[in-house]
Amino acid sequence: MLEHGGQLRAAARYGIPLADWLDLSTGINPIPFAPPPVPPEAWSRLPEEHDGLEEAAASYYGTINILPVAGTQAAIQALPRLRRPCRVGVPHPGYAEHAHAWRSAGHEVKELCADEIAAQVGNLDVLVLMQPNNPTGELFANENLRHWHEELSACGGWLVVDEAFIEASTAQSLIQGAMPQGLIVLRSMGKFFGLAGARTGFVAAHAALLANLREALGPWCVAGPARHVVRAALLDRAWQQAAKKRLVQDGQRLAQLLRDADLPPTGGCGLFQWVQTERAEIIYQRLAQCGILTRYFAEPSSLRFGLPGSGAGWLRLVAALDQEIVCTP
Amino acid sequence: MLEHGGQLRAAARYGIPLADWLDLSTGINPIPFAPPPVPPEAWSRLPEEHDGLEEAAASYYGTINILPVAGTQAAIQALPRLRRPCRVGVPHPGYAEHAHAWRSAGHEVKELCADEIAAQVGNLDVLVLMQPNNPTGELFANENLRHWHEELSACGGWLVVDEAFIEASTAQSLIQGAMPQGLIVLRSMGKFFGLAGARTGFVAAHAALLANLREALGPWCVAGPARHVVRAALLDRAWQQAAKKRLVQDGQRLAQLLRDADLPPTGGCGLFQWVQTERAEIIYQRLAQCGILTRYFAEPSSLRFGLPGSGAGWLRLVAALDQEIVCTP
Repeated sequence: MLEHGGQLRAAARYGIPLADWLDLSTGINPIPFAPPPVPPEAWSRLPEEHDGLEEAAASYYGTINILPVAGTQAAIQALPRLRRPCRVGVPHPGYAEHAHAWRSAGHEVKELCADEIAAQVGNLDVLVLMQPNNPTGELFANENLRHWHEELSACGGWLVVDEAFIEASTAQSLIQGAMPQGLIVLRSMGKFFGLAGARTGFVAAHAALLANLREALGPWCVAGPARHVVRAALLDRAWQQAAKKRLVQDGQRLAQLLRDADLPPTGGCGLFQWVQTERAEIIYQRLAQCGILTRYFAEPSSLRFGLPGSGAGWLRLVAALDQEIVCTP
Repeated sequence: MLEHGGQLRAAARYGIPLADWLDLSTGINPIPFAPPPVPPEAWSRLPEEHDGLEEAAASYYGTINILPVAGTQAAIQALPRLRRPCRVGVPHPGYAEHAHAWRSAGHEVKELCADEIAAQVGNLDVLVLMQPNNPTGELFANENLRHWHEELSACGGWLVVDEAFIEASTAQSLIQGAMPQGLIVLRSMGKFFGLAGARTGFVAAHAALLANLREALGPWCVAGPARHVVRAALLDRAWQQAAKKRLVQDGQRLAQLLRDADLPPTGGCGLFQWVQTERAEIIYQRLAQCGILTRYFAEPSSLRFGLPGSGAGWLRLVAALDQEIVCTP
């Protein structure tokens, strides 16, 4: 299994109690949707469809070709098993679970920089992208994505677009009323809505592919309480509008703060900023010594900063970055 | 996907409002463990290990070789993918998801009656059993199970024992302190604890197999709120003792009631009674017309009755069975 940002392992290594960490390692909205009370039946009954979740998702995402899954991760792992071994392009740098899942299922995986994609798409059966990309924050023009989808689907290929962070960006979703063949869009409840513990995401795709995916995932994959809470989150337009507005502001604030600390972001979105720097590892360690956990990437040498969720958290980050500058050799 | 007991489809067919059904179709404890309040962080953070769930499971099940999974169903689907195509024996009649999962993964599946197993085990690489069996309630002697495990594991084979309903039976679990190679035991939080909506189960097996299974299932498979509630359920010995006592009584009461209605159970356990009768389909329909949903099996012609959860539910079942007898040609 791949390593992910994990507060507890860090806590053990640095000898700082769990409750004292400021965890900026994930890119999850630190001010999450507040879960409504869960009716006891949601715990005790087998989850059934037609409880309103599918309808809420259709309304929020704008398509009826949408399937709830047990987190985007479940879809990332299941999709590669729906194709015979083929040639798959994944972004580099990019969220490593995509490449890992396709490789584990026996596919030939090519890691591509963003500017290599256009030239390589003709040699691929499946192209996986993130919009915006994680951790770089890079956006693709929808015109390019549509063009690549046409090119791939003309030969039975797929364009898989992981839109996990899209609500925190300026990008327009590729989801459309009736999903065409060969286009698969992944959405997450963990990032914008901050419901990472609910293990719920959605896949938008052509009805035939969704039927295959549903069969592969099996019955009852999303927990009953999660179905209840996620449905409420998808229907709460007032919360969504306020959260989007706040993420724009907070994203800009974080970017400015990093610029002020001489760590100008190379890219980012409302939920994280990405800083490419040769000093990433030492900065990661110094921040961890202050109880601030970021996400370190060795290749390319870089750091991803999530948002602090409280005034105190922002002040701690400011103070630590000030100190970091002071400590700079 | 296989058909399962589903209240809503039945409700649509019989024109009875959802809230008016007495659902006896599942074998889930109708008086479930009452979930404690879930801390908001369980919804908002990615689920992490070391939150006490693994320790609670080790204590309840009596082994540290235990892995939480997103419902027994997740393990049923993942285990067949951990072996190259081989010869698999599954019980007939038995819970159909086992055969379905092994077949879907390309294995050669033989359906075996209980009395064929001893003679066939030498021709198998994997033997899947339920203890007690669902829906027949049949129990295997642990001596036989241990003997079959030895026979299978000597050639690299597996004995998979699904103990989903074991707390509602007199059987002793096959789980032991250090799990040996070739023995895989599945446990469910959905039946005895009545937490079917939590989508949480456990797999006890040799550490090396658990590591492979964990890798196949990927990160964060059990939702954070489910981890919290399941941990509490596993630790609540007073609830467990009271529930076991009640299930013994209620199981006997249901069996007696069926005998009184001239439908003597062929087998069962504390959570369900199984009635083999040529008249199963017509009885299923007549009970459904009264708003009582049972589980009908065509082959062999039989019905499974779960427990009513309330005094009113018991009275409704008594009345409907009385009427059923009156209506008998």
